[in-house]
Amino acid sequence: MTGPLAFEVVARDGAARTGRLTLPHGVVETPTFMAVGTRGAVKACTIDQVLATGTPIVLGNTYHLALRPGAEIVKKAGGLHKFTGWTRNMLTDSGGFQVWSLSELRKVSERGVEFRSHYDGALLELTPERSIQIQNDLGADIIMAFDECSPYPCPEDVAAAAVARTSRWAERSRAAHKRDDQALFGIVQGSTYLPLREESARALVGLEFPGYAIGGLSVGEGHEKMDEVLAHTCPLLPEEKPRYLMGVGTPRDFLLACARGVDLFDCVLPTRNARNAQVFTATGHLKLRNARFREDFTPIDPECLCYACKNGFSRAYLRHLFNVDEITALTLATIHNLTFCQDFMKKIREAISRGELASFARDRNVL
Amino acid sequence: MTGPLAFEVVARDGAARTGRLTLPHGVVETPTFMAVGTRGAVKACTIDQVLATGTPIVLGNTYHLALRPGAEIVKKAGGLHKFTGWTRNMLTDSGGFQVWSLSELRKVSERGVEFRSHYDGALLELTPERSIQIQNDLGADIIMAFDECSPYPCPEDVAAAAVARTSRWAERSRAAHKRDDQALFGIVQGSTYLPLREESARALVGLEFPGYAIGGLSVGEGHEKMDEVLAHTCPLLPEEKPRYLMGVGTPRDFLLACARGVDLFDCVLPTRNARNAQVFTATGHLKLRNARFREDFTPIDPECLCYACKNGFSRAYLRHLFNVDEITALTLATIHNLTFCQDFMKKIREAISRGELASFARDRNVL
Repeated sequence: MTGPLAFEVVARDGAARTGRLTLPHGVVETPTFMAVGTRGAVKACTIDQVLATGTPIVLGNTYHLALRPGAEIVKKAGGLHKFTGWTRNMLTDSGGFQVWSLSELRKVSERGVEFRSHYDGALLELTPERSIQIQNDLGADIIMAFDECSPYPCPEDVAAAAVARTSRWAERSRAAHKRDDQALFGIVQGSTYLPLREESARALVGLEFPGYAIGGLSVGEGHEKMDEVLAHTCPLLPEEKPRYLMGVGTPRDFLLACARGVDLFDCVLPTRNARNAQVFTATGHLKLRNARFREDFTPIDPECLCYACKNGFSRAYLRHLFNVDEITALTLATIHNLTFCQDFMKKIREAISRGELASFARDRNVL
Repeated sequence: MTGPLAFEVVARDGAARTGRLTLPHGVVETPTFMAVGTRGAVKACTIDQVLATGTPIVLGNTYHLALRPGAEIVKKAGGLHKFTGWTRNMLTDSGGFQVWSLSELRKVSERGVEFRSHYDGALLELTPERSIQIQNDLGADIIMAFDECSPYPCPEDVAAAAVARTSRWAERSRAAHKRDDQALFGIVQGSTYLPLREESARALVGLEFPGYAIGGLSVGEGHEKMDEVLAHTCPLLPEEKPRYLMGVGTPRDFLLACARGVDLFDCVLPTRNARNAQVFTATGHLKLRNARFREDFTPIDPECLCYACKNGFSRAYLRHLFNVDEITALTLATIHNLTFCQDFMKKIREAISRGELASFARDRNVL
């Protein structure tokens, strides 16, 4: 393996594939789901609880970590792995998405984005160079180029300008990247405009990143448009490199995207939904606060092997804990949803290996 | 062992003693600290995290559990152990203290207390018979007689009336108790009036409970008055039965009360303080939100063997998590404080065994 990343496609089923992604902190079977640990912790969980869910990669948010505690603190601690205690792989995003979605925007220019911290209003700037410097300081195994993420819906000329800027920022990101133990991914933008997706993909592939993300999806465009973009974009990305669909999400979207050849996913939804008492099961999701679980002494999902289900914590118990605002409920539901996602990905990998992803997906159309 | 409880004094050091308390869910070395799991969970922790702290008994609150989810639900689940998954011993209080401290009081009579639920305003009644019936349904290993807890300060005649009523209610509690696998403890009241404490202790000892609690302390009377009451009350309780000081608390009070011959403690303070970022260490408590921990990459207490300390989660990391309101911080700090309490109790037991409790306490006057 040259560089921090090696990727090998193991099995194919149409456009879908399983793979083996080797990173500095271990081998990852793909497709896989990466848990979101925004501020250096997967919410409501300890690292051992996250490890036990089978999660191979945890994502940290550059925007949040740069504001609190600050990249220099994490660097002094020895990097994000050392700071948080997480021993497997990590990925940091570039901060671009959060600057757009969370900050009061000040100024977007070719140079970068000036914005106000949502913590204390401090005026800050994020540029491709600064984003990469922060990510070098944080020290995740995979880091992301600084991009301009288009909202949805987005006028074509605005999306086109974002694609062009994303390509230029990708080049600057690549030039700024200083650590050879971190793999820098480029991000394809282009909203739902297929020619723009094509332009973006070609520009980024030309920069020869070790992996590619597809950004700007799962922002309200719906399953059909997402599928259309993925069907068009995935074949434009190198077969031999990992593909990461940002911000997805749900069992249904995992199936849809894996069928198009996506390898990596991340989303706050499994963990955020868990904290709202919404849990995945093999037969659809449950809202655990519901009165019908009052005397339901079965586990969330009898097939599930997570800590909560295999130890027999019942729907009635979890309903009670949620209804009286016990923090333990958030922990147990988060463990369950993360385990469900990893288990679901394992089943997807197995279905691809058997060449049966289509029928596997059909059987799960309730999800 | 006849009945659900056996107690044996193992070593003595002045009035202090170590003991071996055998209950249906395991042997407990005393003195010990019981963690509070008000609504069927120790806040921010899973049962395995609590087990790992060495906590041998978890306390559930009858008042809270009777309101949510309701004793009938817990009974249908197979009792509090089955409902919560906790495999070691449990204790439930009688609900008396919460009726006084949390509810809008409606009517106190010889029969019991009518009150409004702090959840939904429903008019409810707790009597000695109802409290014991609920506690029989919950199924903890130790249950408590329904008492009238005096506030502090309290006029002597009011405290005297509460003592007399507590004795009558203790007798009714004993008569109502239907399960021979649960040990029912009486509660000594009497505020800070030593003759009233004596009257209460004699009346309860006459009822031959398998254990005795000292209630109505740690309610604002201060260390000196508490010590005075304990010094006076403990010798009035049978040597061969366990003594439980309710609502205590702090390392300093543990030392003070153990020296007087107390065996069992419970308090929300170690867990509540943890959630407020205040943690115990061998050299005093720390407020983890403090700016001085910004770059302090040492664990909370280098001597501590808790999950948080032994895995090297640093003060800087915990400070960061607390400052950005990450739930994981509450979990790690709770694990630490509970471990500290169990470890501190172990050191107290060892000091008593060596006949050195007084010097051990002197060395820890910072706590």
